Amino acid sequence: MATIPAGTSTPHIMIDVEQLEKNIEKMAHRVASQGLKMRPHAKTHKMLEVAGRQLEAGAVGLTVATVGEALSFALQGVAKIFIAYPLWVDESQAQRIQELMKRAKLSIGTDSVEAVEQMARMLGPQAAKIRLMIEIDSGHHRSGVSPHDALAIAEAARAAGMRVHGVFTFPGHSYNPDGIDCAVNDEHKTLAEATRILRAGGCTIKRISGGSTPTAALSDNSVLTEVRPGVYVFGDAQQYELGRTGFDEIALTVAATVVSRHEGNEQIPRRVVLDAGSKILGSDRPAWATGYGRIAECLDARISALSEHHATVLWPENLELPAHGTQLQVIPNHVCQAVNLVDSVLAVHPDGSSELWDVAARGLNF
Amino acid sequence: MATIPAGTSTPHIMIDVEQLEKNIEKMAHRVASQGLKMRPHAKTHKMLEVAGRQLEAGAVGLTVATVGEALSFALQGVAKIFIAYPLWVDESQAQRIQELMKRAKLSIGTDSVEAVEQMARMLGPQAAKIRLMIEIDSGHHRSGVSPHDALAIAEAARAAGMRVHGVFTFPGHSYNPDGIDCAVNDEHKTLAEATRILRAGGCTIKRISGGSTPTAALSDNSVLTEVRPGVYVFGDAQQYELGRTGFDEIALTVAATVVSRHEGNEQIPRRVVLDAGSKILGSDRPAWATGYGRIAECLDARISALSEHHATVLWPENLELPAHGTQLQVIPNHVCQAVNLVDSVLAVHPDGSSELWDVAARGLNF
Repeated sequence: MATIPAGTSTPHIMIDVEQLEKNIEKMAHRVASQGLKMRPHAKTHKMLEVAGRQLEAGAVGLTVATVGEALSFALQGVAKIFIAYPLWVDESQAQRIQELMKRAKLSIGTDSVEAVEQMARMLGPQAAKIRLMIEIDSGHHRSGVSPHDALAIAEAARAAGMRVHGVFTFPGHSYNPDGIDCAVNDEHKTLAEATRILRAGGCTIKRISGGSTPTAALSDNSVLTEVRPGVYVFGDAQQYELGRTGFDEIALTVAATVVSRHEGNEQIPRRVVLDAGSKILGSDRPAWATGYGRIAECLDARISALSEHHATVLWPENLELPAHGTQLQVIPNHVCQAVNLVDSVLAVHPDGSSELWDVAARGLNF
Repeated sequence: MATIPAGTSTPHIMIDVEQLEKNIEKMAHRVASQGLKMRPHAKTHKMLEVAGRQLEAGAVGLTVATVGEALSFALQGVAKIFIAYPLWVDESQAQRIQELMKRAKLSIGTDSVEAVEQMARMLGPQAAKIRLMIEIDSGHHRSGVSPHDALAIAEAARAAGMRVHGVFTFPGHSYNPDGIDCAVNDEHKTLAEATRILRAGGCTIKRISGGSTPTAALSDNSVLTEVRPGVYVFGDAQQYELGRTGFDEIALTVAATVVSRHEGNEQIPRRVVLDAGSKILGSDRPAWATGYGRIAECLDARISALSEHHATVLWPENLELPAHGTQLQVIPNHVCQAVNLVDSVLAVHPDGSSELWDVAARGLNF
């Protein structure tokens, strides 16, 4: 973890560039050694500086969640983009997708006959060039269809002159302390079944895409052809508490300052307050998490409450409270939320020098 | 609630300008009729278009949470600003505060001797011009001191050549279904006690400032001189579920589209998925809330899960699921988080015309 550069105003997101590069290299190697392709999810970082390092390390393209994110990366030169989201394409989306297709090879997710027919209507002849990816529900029960409903979508695509390129899923139930092995099994089983059904129905399935940082490291090419992890580049408190990221692997923190300090008494908790609140850490807090993030300098401390500009931190009883003005590094619970709250991050190099990286795709929700 | 303008790409934050103006007028009238001044918290909206309407309706100045927010509004011409936050002023903050003081009358919060001494050191002779506001803990147990510790801070200020102008508190425990009356009492009692102690110690206390949308409407001038509500301009699902905002008073929604639709079965929930996720709604979800926001068109629906770009909505069993592509309006749980996630909002006028308003102070965390 990099040291906070002198003179840093807080709260400020910091990236340890050396650790970031190690994380990218490690996952690239692991995924390649399993015979899988890497199509990392860029919603986590939204930065060309990170995407460039992922592509240099062998990623075959980027995954994104929105047309806006896709355009941002395409305009910066990324040539292969997968929008892993069941888009409902309206007229304004259609115009932007046409723009996008001038610059990048595009695959788009879908999970319904209706969305495929809408896409074909809105994009006209251009629709034939899109690589459709059918989203399968592997147990997260968000978007995605059961393997048995995939063929109807493929047939609608064929009827509309579009082509199905593959299947994908997001095993979101892997974000659970007991859920990881089960989620990996579910992911493989449902994607295998969907592929079997689609191939039996005459489809050529070229891409079988699995997701998530927790499962990517456990996947192999027995079913999948690729994975789409996102959070692994930085790690976060959720992945640390799930045991999927080591403390030493955390590459992003929020530099924060002790602005308030209270010894407490029987009625009032002993605490410090940091100036990093939910407007820089994000408010995500799964029921199993121990708090709203972790303090790098004191893993036994707990962020018991989070306001927009305050983190209330319960400090271990046996340790002295840090002094007013002390700068500490907070590990956010969910790094994708934190990065999306700032326009730039402070990238710190091993020699201690630092520079600002632009979060170019921040806030591009559509 | 305004109708979604034709051709709106989703997800998109919309403001009903007429309702916004009614909300501003109503609170301004209520507060004035209680003999209180209004110093609304601008962290909720971060927009000059809203601040301007608040000032026209009689607000004596703005409240903000950070130096960055203060500078943003001061550069746009707002002349009186209260940073209601216990700032720890470092060198870079000091430079920006000097800049700020050229443009606006400034009051700043503090809750420790250390922070006062630091402010005096960093700001030099300019420190004397700042109106210090001592933060009192009225039961939220975040920042703020007990009334008995206020005099030591005032004495440190005097010794450093600074002047205490008043006291303030944030009764955050009012954000609780059973807590409102108790929070109002706590707020009045602790601010009255702090004022008594400070005056007995020779301080001239001119401003006694209470906060929060839930308590502002219940406060009078028996103790307070002013209130600092924020959320009242838009309302949100939290205030609606707390009973502090009527459904008809909601002035901000997120236009969203049904992108995925599933009838479900015994194992899999019946649901639709909207394209408004935590990256536009925010993830705030207090334990007492019924979900991650409410659907304006169907108050019986529940947002059972929120991902970054998906809201999973359980639809009432007796109602047909909305069709793919249907646009709905989501009321965010906590509007301050939602606004801070976008660069601009769609302001819709009563005649159906609309324009973009810039969220000028978005992301200004320091």
